Amino acid sequence: MIQSPYLLFLGDAPDPLAAKVAQGIRDWRPDLAVGQYRMEGCNADMDLLDMTLDEAIEAGAKTLVVGVANRGGMISPSWLHVLESAMHKGLDIASGLHNLLRDEPTLMAASMATGQALHDVRVPDVKYPIANGRRRTGKRCLAVGTDCSVGKMYTGLAMEREMLEREMKATFRPTGQTGILITGGGIPLDAVVADFMAGAVEWLTPDNDPDHWDLIEGQGSLFHASYSGVTLALIHGGQPDALVLCHEPTRKHMRGLPDYALPSLEDLRDLALTMARIVNPDVYVAGISVNTHGLDEDAAEEYLAEVEARMGLPTVDPFRDGAGRLVDALK
Amino acid sequence: MIQSPYLLFLGDAPDPLAAKVAQGIRDWRPDLAVGQYRMEGCNADMDLLDMTLDEAIEAGAKTLVVGVANRGGMISPSWLHVLESAMHKGLDIASGLHNLLRDEPTLMAASMATGQALHDVRVPDVKYPIANGRRRTGKRCLAVGTDCSVGKMYTGLAMEREMLEREMKATFRPTGQTGILITGGGIPLDAVVADFMAGAVEWLTPDNDPDHWDLIEGQGSLFHASYSGVTLALIHGGQPDALVLCHEPTRKHMRGLPDYALPSLEDLRDLALTMARIVNPDVYVAGISVNTHGLDEDAAEEYLAEVEARMGLPTVDPFRDGAGRLVDALK
Repeated sequence: MIQSPYLLFLGDAPDPLAAKVAQGIRDWRPDLAVGQYRMEGCNADMDLLDMTLDEAIEAGAKTLVVGVANRGGMISPSWLHVLESAMHKGLDIASGLHNLLRDEPTLMAASMATGQALHDVRVPDVKYPIANGRRRTGKRCLAVGTDCSVGKMYTGLAMEREMLEREMKATFRPTGQTGILITGGGIPLDAVVADFMAGAVEWLTPDNDPDHWDLIEGQGSLFHASYSGVTLALIHGGQPDALVLCHEPTRKHMRGLPDYALPSLEDLRDLALTMARIVNPDVYVAGISVNTHGLDEDAAEEYLAEVEARMGLPTVDPFRDGAGRLVDALK
Repeated sequence: MIQSPYLLFLGDAPDPLAAKVAQGIRDWRPDLAVGQYRMEGCNADMDLLDMTLDEAIEAGAKTLVVGVANRGGMISPSWLHVLESAMHKGLDIASGLHNLLRDEPTLMAASMATGQALHDVRVPDVKYPIANGRRRTGKRCLAVGTDCSVGKMYTGLAMEREMLEREMKATFRPTGQTGILITGGGIPLDAVVADFMAGAVEWLTPDNDPDHWDLIEGQGSLFHASYSGVTLALIHGGQPDALVLCHEPTRKHMRGLPDYALPSLEDLRDLALTMARIVNPDVYVAGISVNTHGLDEDAAEEYLAEVEARMGLPTVDPFRDGAGRLVDALK
């Protein structure tokens, strides 16, 4: 587990999109961040207090979280002296970048010298079991998508927020780097060894109170040739009671696969239910979450209404409308 | 690649089943083995010449292949002195066991001292790419099963043998430890990191001559809660033109999952085709391979005839009948 609260490191983020991780923490766990650290040329702003390392420590920060990704997800050489100083002043460092903190000799040396931790959340640090498929107590809801990056994490977090506001028992269960950094725990599923994928998901979503819901972050898509195996392990390890179908209506082809068209929501519903019934015959689709970011307001409303009528399921954009109707649809 | 020919190490195999890897080499690549090495108490026999290490080297052996697995797939302490001696006499060592040769200090020391290689085929030694889903040339046939361990490897090897006898272009493509040791190459798919599973299968089955067939070894089952993600990565990375359905009719439940019944061959056909059509709309089921080991001859014949009539597909036990009718069914 990553020690909180955090100082969000925005580095020299060229634009707000590059600070996706910081934005996620700001949106979903604002209490976890005492402030932000920006370098010369930073074009992202989380609307948090700008702090020096000393001010952050004074404010109680325990971990500097790398909230920015430059092109290629690399650690920028210009960041290194800040990260080193942070360790010498008493902060741990956490990152979800492709190249690892532990592979930077200067950071490794600073960690050895100071005893501060380097958290590379892209790398599993647990020996996960092989899945046993046994029926578990508690309820689980899984977001499945027509494609990668269509709003599955956002949907799960929005449902968790809504459920906690209603004083329901609910826990968002991250399965990717951003989700892990946002919440401080989870599994980096795409980095788990094949044989243990479904077991890692079982480990993440254990037996629970009968009225407790795990909101499991989805990954990839059953229809995505590169990552479909990860998605199926999530379905079979997650043993969902409810599915939420996620979709982005303006996408021209599967992400990264120019030769592949997106499936219809009907195809997704049928295939995801067929797969999920293998581990839970009573699974149902609770609703549909559409990322309408690419549509104007009228077009979005029209699209949501059309899908809702066609599919006979509550259809919302949780960013515009909240996740209330999806939560209402859970049995 | 593992240097051949091999000396097959049978150790103190308590029964013939424990020497499954050696038996596979004996059955499918007999030219690769110069002889066998048996210790006190060995109850397996490959009907090869019993050899000392010196005799094996004299006969040209380059690698001692651990062809035996004791309970738990561990390296037995009683084997270590033989493996050490083998290295000092000039043999490499290859193993597919769970615990690794490289984790045995005495073997590692012998490897450092002698320069002989330790091949742990359970661990990938290639940095596989992420799958790109692009259409490849050549033909590919994939075995898919109602369950794990129902004869998928055997089916692929039997089809390869039949095709080579007919002077067709064909290559068996192993995706598991036994297959890798039998042929000297392949991918240990269950040990590949999730994100790279489908890419590893693409890497294994690249563009080829239009009339060349890859016979891809299947793994797991779409219906097996523990391993289904591996199976789907094989289907989407393998981009099969033809599928062969594999089944073992006497199994009471999914292997290792007492609460899960086996799917029907119809369910397997429909789900595997649905999944494979995502990457190749023209995919078809060529035939059905049944492991009738658990049935007597009359019952086996009756079962095969019943399935063939019901499914309308050539149905054989390649061990009893050969794989000729499966090969005939390839388009």
